[in-house]
Amino acid sequence: MTVPAFPNPAVDAPAPGGVEPFDAVDVIAAKRDGDRLTDAQIDWVIDAYTRGVVADEQMSALAMAIYLVGMDRGEIARWTDAMIRSGQRMDFSCLGRPTADKHSTGGVGDKITLPLAPLVAVFGVSVPQLSGRGLGHTGGTLDKLESIPGWRAALSNDEIMSMLSADGPGAVICAAGSGLAPADKKLYALRDTTGTVSCVPLIASSIMSKKIAEGTGALVLDVKVGSGAFMKELSQARELAETMVALGTDAGVVTRALLTDMSTPLGLTAGNALEVREALEVLSGGGPVDVVDLTVALAVEMLDAAGRPVAEDELRAALGDGRAMDVWREMIRRQDGDPDAPLPVAPETETITADADGVLTRLDALGVGVAAWRLGAGRARKEDPVQAVAGVELHAKPGEAVRAGQPLLTLHTATPERFARARAALADAIVVSAPDSSEARAAVARRRSGVVLDRIV
Amino acid sequence: MTVPAFPNPAVDAPAPGGVEPFDAVDVIAAKRDGDRLTDAQIDWVIDAYTRGVVADEQMSALAMAIYLVGMDRGEIARWTDAMIRSGQRMDFSCLGRPTADKHSTGGVGDKITLPLAPLVAVFGVSVPQLSGRGLGHTGGTLDKLESIPGWRAALSNDEIMSMLSADGPGAVICAAGSGLAPADKKLYALRDTTGTVSCVPLIASSIMSKKIAEGTGALVLDVKVGSGAFMKELSQARELAETMVALGTDAGVVTRALLTDMSTPLGLTAGNALEVREALEVLSGGGPVDVVDLTVALAVEMLDAAGRPVAEDELRAALGDGRAMDVWREMIRRQDGDPDAPLPVAPETETITADADGVLTRLDALGVGVAAWRLGAGRARKEDPVQAVAGVELHAKPGEAVRAGQPLLTLHTATPERFARARAALADAIVVSAPDSSEARAAVARRRSGVVLDRIV
Repeated sequence: MTVPAFPNPAVDAPAPGGVEPFDAVDVIAAKRDGDRLTDAQIDWVIDAYTRGVVADEQMSALAMAIYLVGMDRGEIARWTDAMIRSGQRMDFSCLGRPTADKHSTGGVGDKITLPLAPLVAVFGVSVPQLSGRGLGHTGGTLDKLESIPGWRAALSNDEIMSMLSADGPGAVICAAGSGLAPADKKLYALRDTTGTVSCVPLIASSIMSKKIAEGTGALVLDVKVGSGAFMKELSQARELAETMVALGTDAGVVTRALLTDMSTPLGLTAGNALEVREALEVLSGGGPVDVVDLTVALAVEMLDAAGRPVAEDELRAALGDGRAMDVWREMIRRQDGDPDAPLPVAPETETITADADGVLTRLDALGVGVAAWRLGAGRARKEDPVQAVAGVELHAKPGEAVRAGQPLLTLHTATPERFARARAALADAIVVSAPDSSEARAAVARRRSGVVLDRIV
Repeated sequence: MTVPAFPNPAVDAPAPGGVEPFDAVDVIAAKRDGDRLTDAQIDWVIDAYTRGVVADEQMSALAMAIYLVGMDRGEIARWTDAMIRSGQRMDFSCLGRPTADKHSTGGVGDKITLPLAPLVAVFGVSVPQLSGRGLGHTGGTLDKLESIPGWRAALSNDEIMSMLSADGPGAVICAAGSGLAPADKKLYALRDTTGTVSCVPLIASSIMSKKIAEGTGALVLDVKVGSGAFMKELSQARELAETMVALGTDAGVVTRALLTDMSTPLGLTAGNALEVREALEVLSGGGPVDVVDLTVALAVEMLDAAGRPVAEDELRAALGDGRAMDVWREMIRRQDGDPDAPLPVAPETETITADADGVLTRLDALGVGVAAWRLGAGRARKEDPVQAVAGVELHAKPGEAVRAGQPLLTLHTATPERFARARAALADAIVVSAPDSSEARAAVARRRSGVVLDRIV
């Protein structure tokens, strides 16, 4: 049971120096008590938090109130806008060509950005992919690319413009500068330690503030659904997608979302160098079919949203004939990476085999993601280093027949003392069922790794 | 809408040094998601917060989750016990006489402790009244006593024991040492700035952890109800009272609660020296009838709970014949105060008069409390000083007939620039109604300042 609050003494008191129009306690109490926050309250609390006038312990209490009470679409839009206005906003209109970006809500084995950005650039649409680092069991795109010898993530604004121009490769994957949505950066770190990550208003505003500030003209969201994603259920993912599409559209960004399956890892690798290797396979016209299909599906959306529709066949051709690979190699070189250098390989591996004949009916994305992370592919804290070589390689996918003793997964790491905890994470993640069981028949029929479940425009 | 959380990476990660059995995010998420916290989780989070391992922004998120989700009686009991175990616990068993204490949840003009402690001590029950300072619009007992020239709030444990013994006055009002429930001290300050004050589990555990650690054998709670109290409604006050009585009883303290009215100020003064003056009137056998009645009612409960029942008449006699005053004077002297020194008087006063003939139907406790606080009687921040002389003096109480131009209140302060804001706080606090109106008849019939509304044992 909760009870009504007093008028807060600090609210009634003259503001120190008379400069702050609100008191943080007043804003927190309003949301806590189920009120809609006003535009002025939202603008102030985001600005004051960025300036350090609202303290971390106040913002975390407000975030928890938002988590439990919610915000309506109007509040989320204002919150997003206030975070954008906390920093700079990039402008690519001087490029003279359309721009399109993709954002994934995070999945296990999700290396799609790597082949996707150069593929879209082949067709004259620039791709400004300003990325963050991974935290937890889903890897970060920058961490993956840093397994390429020499490659650097940090670029100046001039370098970014040069990469995106008609004279450059036309795509860039680099670190988002600290000037974009600094309020979100601060809040994102806070949410991670205060149990306020997984709520639609805070996820949607965090993603969209960064992407709108980034200045892309079109945006395709890959909203993951399933055990390896923030959203376990399709209905939740749909609400998140609809919220983000509305935020982008209202801000003048052509925004679409695909809801895609993340119940099992995407492709056959999870880990930094392992995923780059798989991306190179796709850029060479090969690679796992689920990775290729999702890359093409997202490229179709991005090009269409950017006003340059391209047929699926043409996109597949650009993967097969080396055009996308040429853009990739130029992208890597421009960031001091050596596209011909061999990728690092783990000194230690262990194999997990099937313990019976049958059908692989479960290979859980979360289990594989946590195993890769425990092997050293991810970090528990922002300041932790990651291993380029660590990760999990899959030799079978759900729905495939397997034989007893057949390798199912190979674990990779530079630090073999991590194997035990990685295996523990996989304990319930792998199930082999009898071939004639209903589970096996369902898994064979389903085979839906990376499949598009819904589309929100 | 909220969405399920991931297994938190930090929880899955090896604890740094392997020493912490829980991760704060895990505990926060459990409460956020509606789970009951386990004893081990509660013990750890309180201990780790006291040690600084759980950060303020984590505890404030947890406090907000508790505010919005609640805790059951078992969780509140464990939370209280964990806060007690965060510090020392006093023990008065060596005194060889019963002890009884009173705690008020805070009201405007509530100076009852001042005459009550010596009155109870007259009858052989020791009163260890370890107090805090006021924050906001309700004054602090220590602030009031500090308006007596020379009086000091800080005593050593030996001094406290000496005051309580049969050789001493038998009662002590002093500052609670920093060793009692340090977890509560830290959390109390945090709640004040994070909008997590007014919730039953956190109020009950805060009060009871201090009072149980203080070591009193019997405890009477004065739970205020009305505009000037945390609890605006009787049902809320009853839940708080029942929760606290259960906590005290389970901890072996004979605990009772009176629910008393706080819709209008208690007595005729709100402010530090002004309230001491009124307490001295009561100890001299006079004083406002509501203050006397509540003092006697609480003394009856305290003595009965301590196993030394005394009739109301005898208590009134001890106020009338100077026995309680003798104890008071000894208490003040032992803490270096001069009971014969004149109390400080405000250099500036302003009077508010009735603007019509009629019946005073409303004199709102919160309005008077905020006015007194704005005049300088209270503080907005812990470190602020208070004025001994500031406050509000009432010349009429609701239900009394008044004439146009008759003084209703006198405002006292050392800083006359504060008058305007004090008057603003009173704008809606005073209503004079026509004598034959239904409001007037109701106010005359009600006259319930300080009245006992319910009793929880």
